[in-house]
Amino acid sequence: MADAAKPNTVTAAILVIGDEILSGRTKDKNIGYIAEYLTNIGIDVKEVRVVPDDEPEVVGALDALRHRYNYVFTTGGIGPTHDDITADCVAKAFGVTIDVDPRARAMLLTRIKEADLNEARLRMARIPAGADLIVNKVSSAPGFRIGNVHVMAGVPSIMQAMLDEVAPTLKTGVKMLSDTVRAELREGDIGTPLGAVAKAHPDVTIGSYPFQDDRGPNSNIVVRSRDPEKLAAAKAAVEEMLASVRAGLRRTA
Amino acid sequence: MADAAKPNTVTAAILVIGDEILSGRTKDKNIGYIAEYLTNIGIDVKEVRVVPDDEPEVVGALDALRHRYNYVFTTGGIGPTHDDITADCVAKAFGVTIDVDPRARAMLLTRIKEADLNEARLRMARIPAGADLIVNKVSSAPGFRIGNVHVMAGVPSIMQAMLDEVAPTLKTGVKMLSDTVRAELREGDIGTPLGAVAKAHPDVTIGSYPFQDDRGPNSNIVVRSRDPEKLAAAKAAVEEMLASVRAGLRRTA
Repeated sequence: MADAAKPNTVTAAILVIGDEILSGRTKDKNIGYIAEYLTNIGIDVKEVRVVPDDEPEVVGALDALRHRYNYVFTTGGIGPTHDDITADCVAKAFGVTIDVDPRARAMLLTRIKEADLNEARLRMARIPAGADLIVNKVSSAPGFRIGNVHVMAGVPSIMQAMLDEVAPTLKTGVKMLSDTVRAELREGDIGTPLGAVAKAHPDVTIGSYPFQDDRGPNSNIVVRSRDPEKLAAAKAAVEEMLASVRAGLRRTA
Repeated sequence: MADAAKPNTVTAAILVIGDEILSGRTKDKNIGYIAEYLTNIGIDVKEVRVVPDDEPEVVGALDALRHRYNYVFTTGGIGPTHDDITADCVAKAFGVTIDVDPRARAMLLTRIKEADLNEARLRMARIPAGADLIVNKVSSAPGFRIGNVHVMAGVPSIMQAMLDEVAPTLKTGVKMLSDTVRAELREGDIGTPLGAVAKAHPDVTIGSYPFQDDRGPNSNIVVRSRDPEKLAAAKAAVEEMLASVRAGLRRTA
């Protein structure tokens, strides 16, 4: 819990469950969405895992992540078919029973006729004992929260609606602020002085991200900190360094 | 090594290294590409992890994955700036030294003038002792392979060029074949009989993936097996089941 214990910091992991992501058949659209969403509300995503629809793998990953981070968010595996095993895996990880939950069954019945509520659809109402439901505006099938684990759908539109419901219930830390400086220089020209700036600003994380556009290779320097003054100081130091390197290059050109 | 030891099966994990993925600032494009690529050449991706630019995290993930799967493919963290720490982490995980590699330095000099080969750019030639270089057609900075770990760039175009170089060197298993049947039914209408088909075809993995189009909710049934006859038999059973469910729904409609 080293990370989780830091003051002002709330941590999370994302666990994506599904063979279809690992085979490449389906391209994940949830990791980036959840990561950006949580960052914006002051929760730091520290790890992501993708595992197959296989009980020991899902349970193992749940146990590794839920003890280490403040929150875990899972996506996938809560539909009505035999390969939807997430709820059972979560019950197993927490050592609780799982059965059709009357609240979840009632939710399903708001959009499904009783005659259509067959065994398969009732699977979507199987909720581990002690869990709270995550309602959502897109689907009548709920997600659920148990302990620090939030179990959400894999379909992006449903997952996003669930995350909107969950967000107000989450403990959040001091938001990580970030600012981006376009270097107008190649990474190789600024690596050493940028490293010196990073060393001189230990409470600010400085990342360098190369990109290429019509005018050639370039870099974005991203400065991140929870402290706006330290962020501003580091950004100014980066800008000063960049101006100095550009001037040096003009002289030698 | 349970998975890796299965006959006809070669397994892999993908390790994405980078704060920018976890913050959501950069949306990963490599996981889906590598997963599909490896699946197509007969290597099963069994796990993906995303970790921050933090040495203990990277080393821990490397060690967890490289002992468990036949191959590990990493992306990110091999550029010229201070936040590029992947090569050092890999050296640490393998317990080997790391220094500027004359072969890598020579590669850099094919596109970089000697006068421009500063300390930062030379970082890209730091290669763990005993590693083989991964050349590529897009960038003069190499990736490398040590043991069963392949270290690749994070920039998608460079990573893809590196994967093309690596692929012919990999041991591959019997390719996982797959076929998709469009159900023309909602998942909830087929969950129970589909589960029965899955149970009757234990050597075939059957997945159900809901989707929505202009005509409403629908499902794709994906059957996967290394054995073409078993695949065909399972697909036929799925199609027969779907026809029977559709006929039943027409009768009750």
